[in-house]
Amino acid sequence: MNLQESPTWLGSAKLQVDGKGRLRHFLSIEGLSRRLITEILDTAESFASLPEQSVKKVPLLRGKTIANLFFEASTRTRTTFELAAKRLSADVLTVNLPTSSAVKGESLLDTLRNLEAMHIDMFVVRHGQSGAAHFIASHASPHVSVVNGGDGRHAHPTQALLDMFTIRRHKPDFSALVVAIVGDVTHSRVARSQIHALRLLGVREIRVIAPRTLLLRHLGELGVRVFTNPCEGLKDVDVIMMLRLQRERMDSAMLPSGLEFFHVYGLTPEKLALAKPDALVMHPGPINRGVEMSSAVADGPQSVILQQVTHGIAIRMAVMSLCLGSHAAGRERLHE
Amino acid sequence: MNLQESPTWLGSAKLQVDGKGRLRHFLSIEGLSRRLITEILDTAESFASLPEQSVKKVPLLRGKTIANLFFEASTRTRTTFELAAKRLSADVLTVNLPTSSAVKGESLLDTLRNLEAMHIDMFVVRHGQSGAAHFIASHASPHVSVVNGGDGRHAHPTQALLDMFTIRRHKPDFSALVVAIVGDVTHSRVARSQIHALRLLGVREIRVIAPRTLLLRHLGELGVRVFTNPCEGLKDVDVIMMLRLQRERMDSAMLPSGLEFFHVYGLTPEKLALAKPDALVMHPGPINRGVEMSSAVADGPQSVILQQVTHGIAIRMAVMSLCLGSHAAGRERLHE
Amino acid sequence: MNLQESPTWLGSAKLQVDGKGRLRHFLSIEGLSRRLITEILDTAESFASLPEQSVKKVPLLRGKTIANLFFEASTRTRTTFELAAKRLSADVLTVNLPTSSAVKGESLLDTLRNLEAMHIDMFVVRHGQSGAAHFIASHASPHVSVVNGGDGRHAHPTQALLDMFTIRRHKPDFSALVVAIVGDVTHSRVARSQIHALRLLGVREIRVIAPRTLLLRHLGELGVRVFTNPCEGLKDVDVIMMLRLQRERMDSAMLPSGLEFFHVYGLTPEKLALAKPDALVMHPGPINRGVEMSSAVADGPQSVILQQVTHGIAIRMAVMSLCLGSHAAGRERLHE
Repeated sequence: MNLQESPTWLGSAKLQVDGKGRLRHFLSIEGLSRRLITEILDTAESFASLPEQSVKKVPLLRGKTIANLFFEASTRTRTTFELAAKRLSADVLTVNLPTSSAVKGESLLDTLRNLEAMHIDMFVVRHGQSGAAHFIASHASPHVSVVNGGDGRHAHPTQALLDMFTIRRHKPDFSALVVAIVGDVTHSRVARSQIHALRLLGVREIRVIAPRTLLLRHLGELGVRVFTNPCEGLKDVDVIMMLRLQRERMDSAMLPSGLEFFHVYGLTPEKLALAKPDALVMHPGPINRGVEMSSAVADGPQSVILQQVTHGIAIRMAVMSLCLGSHAAGRERLHE
Repeated sequence: MNLQESPTWLGSAKLQVDGKGRLRHFLSIEGLSRRLITEILDTAESFASLPEQSVKKVPLLRGKTIANLFFEASTRTRTTFELAAKRLSADVLTVNLPTSSAVKGESLLDTLRNLEAMHIDMFVVRHGQSGAAHFIASHASPHVSVVNGGDGRHAHPTQALLDMFTIRRHKPDFSALVVAIVGDVTHSRVARSQIHALRLLGVREIRVIAPRTLLLRHLGELGVRVFTNPCEGLKDVDVIMMLRLQRERMDSAMLPSGLEFFHVYGLTPEKLALAKPDALVMHPGPINRGVEMSSAVADGPQSVILQQVTHGIAIRMAVMSLCLGSHAAGRERLHE
Repeated sequence: MNLQESPTWLGSAKLQVDGKGRLRHFLSIEGLSRRLITEILDTAESFASLPEQSVKKVPLLRGKTIANLFFEASTRTRTTFELAAKRLSADVLTVNLPTSSAVKGESLLDTLRNLEAMHIDMFVVRHGQSGAAHFIASHASPHVSVVNGGDGRHAHPTQALLDMFTIRRHKPDFSALVVAIVGDVTHSRVARSQIHALRLLGVREIRVIAPRTLLLRHLGELGVRVFTNPCEGLKDVDVIMMLRLQRERMDSAMLPSGLEFFHVYGLTPEKLALAKPDALVMHPGPINRGVEMSSAVADGPQSVILQQVTHGIAIRMAVMSLCLGSHAAGRERLHE
């Protein structure tokens, strides 16, 4: 989350939006306007009712090819992108790539050029290095769109938007909301994207609750209030967004054990009672039960965790169709 | 095949059939009525002629998503389920799962809840533990169907039905048939399902032929005649169903070598001559040539082994379309 | 490239073409007539404009199932065949096969019989052993077509045809062309297929340029001019086809290091200047930059390397649709 370390995404506004203000790539929440974010959420709304119909497909992207470039394993995210693409009637190609691929090497560019020559329309990129999706987008041919499926510690923007979508369905007035993000903010691309999205949508207050060792130094600059005591931080909040404890991303010295973390920060019915009575409980999944929260909370009436999964498909359908629709050739088809 | 060890499937009748007597899950032959089994066979008949047409697809399950949950490797079964789903125009999702997954763990339920939240319509489950498919079905949401693709030593019901379908095409009057099942009955989920299906369809006599060490103690209770001498057991039978020697499932002490097995039980032209002249030779595949049977028999005029493979797709199409058709939303589509 | 070592493909004319002179299997350039090759190129022409349209699919092979049998890893070739099949609306099945599979074993034939019983319409075969695709085609059922996706040192005929297609788009009069093939001709199935295709299409002169250790003894019999000095061989040629240095296929003793090879044979702007000013630079990919050619040439104005990738899909669509169209049932559909 150190902006200095990966300057490539600073120009992401220009990269992500075309001359007519339409979505071309979807790389990070930074660089997008509130209008565009709202357009994505509204488009997702039209897809969210599809699963209740007996035919869950629409022919919007028929004849398009979407390639999943996953340099980092992620069954859940890959699966939801694949389902989203199939429900838009696109063809999906899974490209097996060595997870060791350096993001900026000559050979990656050669691979991209080859896939472009096969007339792939969209790359969904997941990579362990921050800035990977931006790098690929900045080298992509004009007919190709890039969607960031998570890059390093930088961003996971479709996750952030499905979170916003889930909040909006329950509490449509963002300006009235106090939202707490709990956990390892420093190492979380999810948190970074969430904070940017919440600010853009104008929430009243964003709180970050974490052990001192897991806090980002310059967090205040992002416009958030920092708490190390969860009992203070959770008081009267409308939404609690738990982060997944990313053990593999932390230096062992900074790492509290799962049990220690749970003891102080884990969400229990008692801690949840400090929030507003109708506060939403969210988690990007998969949950470490007994670490980030107790099962009573995960499966309780305030949990919207499975709704987040459902909405993830609608959001990805929206992002994919808007990106491909913004191209001259595709635009007409959307309005057929 | 010890009924005591896995009590979960005892209530499978209620699990498999909905309030209107229609198929909801397909888990085991036990719990299904002769009427339902016959409905599946008749439905498969309508799909069996599709491959001869130039377009082998029907749009019955367009817009449905079927997830293959294979906790146990099985290229053949996975392939036929995938083909069946695609020929019904469904979208197929292959979910990579660790083969070590405990079937009743919290994490499996979380995985299922997540897939359900993605609006998967059907899980095809293959698992090394008996009762896995029943467990998953008993925890599934109302909109999801579960099909058993083989679980532990318990059941492999689509295999049994494709066998019945193959027999019926050649010898439609089950009440006149004497059927011999030859091989490792104790460790075979295929045998268990075959015996239940044959009894339900009312064959005249079921014989089990196996070395004493491979025989189930209480086999008599299943209503079968037991032979250890193949020359006696094969006499005048109408159908010979060879089992695959499952070396990996047996304790080494009980295991006759492939050559030893072949010497006594392996089907040769000489042993086959003991059966009726038009007796069918069947095998669930893949054949160990020179172990369960000689190539002269496997490739001979009485072998219907490749027909079994062909019919496996029609049976799986029937099971899938009936399960999904039994849901309110889907039912109408089948009759569009 | 020793014709003696794999006699199975000598009868490939009869295997590849049916009684009415139509394509049934596509195994090697040998055995095909100039008329048939031209028909494939012309058919590919009709598919080459598809990617520029918003819907890149045609329903020609709807309801057909194409199985990729890749006994040898090849992401690029597998991907282009898969894309070609999907853009023809066929269903694609990827069959995982052990790369150690012996090509002529009983178990391979059993696997084939099983897949045929599932009513697969086409096998795309890639195998490390020469003659594998011919062997499979010679044992295939009448309703199945086999396409060679590369076998041992023998042939890679779709690669050769996409090369011819690319040349023809730039220089339609083959009889006027001098073409140089540069690199490890002995171990290259690509080279073998290219030479046969170029001869069949009647080019004026074929040159082979390689170190003495990489030259085939009886190369002269194939009707090519042999050069060990690239400065002589490249003089005034119209087309330069670089081969990929296949390190894994060479005896280490015969192997010049990448740097050594580049020093003498690698294509640099200086060497390229010896050819005609509008000479085409081709490579089957993936390029070893700094070995077969410098980046200045690979990315230069005379390079048509990415066009080759694009045309590879059109050629594979043409081969697939012609093979399946030559069957009675399919033929009518092509002309619907």
